[in-house]
Amino acid sequence: MEVVTTIAEARSRRQLDREEGRSVAFVPTMGALHAGHLALVRRARELGRCVWVSIFVNPTQFGPSEDFERYPRDLAGDSALLRSERVDVVFAPPVTELYPRPPVVRVAFPGLDDVLCGAQRAGHFAGVGLVVAKLFNIVQPDVAVFGQKDAQQALLIQRLTADLDFPVAVEVVPTVREADGLALSSRNAYLSADERRASTALYRALHRGREAVEAGERDPARIEAVMADEIASEPLLRLEYARCVGADDLASPPDATRGPLLLAVAARAGTTRLIDNLPVRRPGP
Amino acid sequence: MEVVTTIAEARSRRQLDREEGRSVAFVPTMGALHAGHLALVRRARELGRCVWVSIFVNPTQFGPSEDFERYPRDLAGDSALLRSERVDVVFAPPVTELYPRPPVVRVAFPGLDDVLCGAQRAGHFAGVGLVVAKLFNIVQPDVAVFGQKDAQQALLIQRLTADLDFPVAVEVVPTVREADGLALSSRNAYLSADERRASTALYRALHRGREAVEAGERDPARIEAVMADEIASEPLLRLEYARCVGADDLASPPDATRGPLLLAVAARAGTTRLIDNLPVRRPGP
Repeated sequence: MEVVTTIAEARSRRQLDREEGRSVAFVPTMGALHAGHLALVRRARELGRCVWVSIFVNPTQFGPSEDFERYPRDLAGDSALLRSERVDVVFAPPVTELYPRPPVVRVAFPGLDDVLCGAQRAGHFAGVGLVVAKLFNIVQPDVAVFGQKDAQQALLIQRLTADLDFPVAVEVVPTVREADGLALSSRNAYLSADERRASTALYRALHRGREAVEAGERDPARIEAVMADEIASEPLLRLEYARCVGADDLASPPDATRGPLLLAVAARAGTTRLIDNLPVRRPGP
Repeated sequence: MEVVTTIAEARSRRQLDREEGRSVAFVPTMGALHAGHLALVRRARELGRCVWVSIFVNPTQFGPSEDFERYPRDLAGDSALLRSERVDVVFAPPVTELYPRPPVVRVAFPGLDDVLCGAQRAGHFAGVGLVVAKLFNIVQPDVAVFGQKDAQQALLIQRLTADLDFPVAVEVVPTVREADGLALSSRNAYLSADERRASTALYRALHRGREAVEAGERDPARIEAVMADEIASEPLLRLEYARCVGADDLASPPDATRGPLLLAVAARAGTTRLIDNLPVRRPGP
């Protein structure tokens, strides 16, 4: 496994892969790797001859009051995990390598980046779009693998790739969960034992939402109320949102029995922000 | 010369160039080619083994009240010119090929895209940024060549390329002028004989501005007044702006005797919008 930390090294390694005809499957991460990331890496292994993983805690996607400084970092542990997964290249640049000066360009997704997590985290998806564009241009993968856990991010990256004609296929891998349903997240490490127990309410809420959809509920507001109630029943959680939206446009559907839906929830346990979602495709009539 | 009209054809031709080790120098245009474009093509010929030219009148960079519909189009004439320049590939897609559906992603340049031409043409540079990102991802050139005539565009593309780490070198070629100083532009074709005569005031204004800088004038507002007066002396022109700004940030400099400057003017002759500029580097002390 090769660890590269500069853009120049990454480009020259990529050039070598190209000259020798090796396709590249790429998994961008912020490190603090868990089994959810490893599911992405394993999918990448199926998709490309070479697997590249980036580890970069991207400052431009954190708000000024968010957890950029305390976000967990463990390059040694991450590298050991990736080596055991037979990853070929790890790209782990310092912040100054990707941002030698403050970027001027702003990548926005009007209508898609100001709902759900974007409504709570102003500028977050602009930062995600910027860094993904940079990483795509540096790594130049044939395919890039993202997790369904960050459903809004995955959708925006699919639009970024399509709208800007990046020559990259985008693959989205299902969320990996603990036995009790909690979606894996690097931020779960912040949870106290009590908060950890409380956090299972997010997945229960999504299940209750899905039951309502499957029972034929047409009104997205009622589906949202069912999910919000489940999270409100857990005193250690503070609800941020519980939404039932179209899977492609993230807007409230006129009729929840139509088209693919995304059920999405966010809540805080203490200062830790947790998100989860469930894509729901109604069985046909 | 190969003319390709689809993204898939362009990608497969590019792949061939890559496999056979040919570097690509790229000139994006909106067609209606003149000697200014040909200067870009000739520079591209010096820079790359293969020269690609795109011809695409990009709808997303025109405002609703602008001249998208009447913008001059002459693919046959353009192709003949490019063939005589020994261009290798012309990429001339229809609008639906680059925009199969309305794009969601918006590329903005806060602080740089809302001054000069951007102040008059809301959304113009967002459209330019979008289409250049698309073309870079489709053509994947080693170097792309732009004209100094569109100084603000050239600066924004340099920032786009740097901020998003496009693996593309950006080359800027000096403005080509008529014998009387008028900068070549496809829009000059709109001018009546009287307007054509009047339009030379733009270049005279820039020259008077440069004389003021060279005479040691420190106050950008006075340099701007000198240029505005020259354009105002021509009754067929309606001034849009006459600015003396920093060449790198497009902001008013505190002292016009410092750092590289850009003198930039825009005016209308009837309904035709004309722009011109002159980079000025003060001789050292």
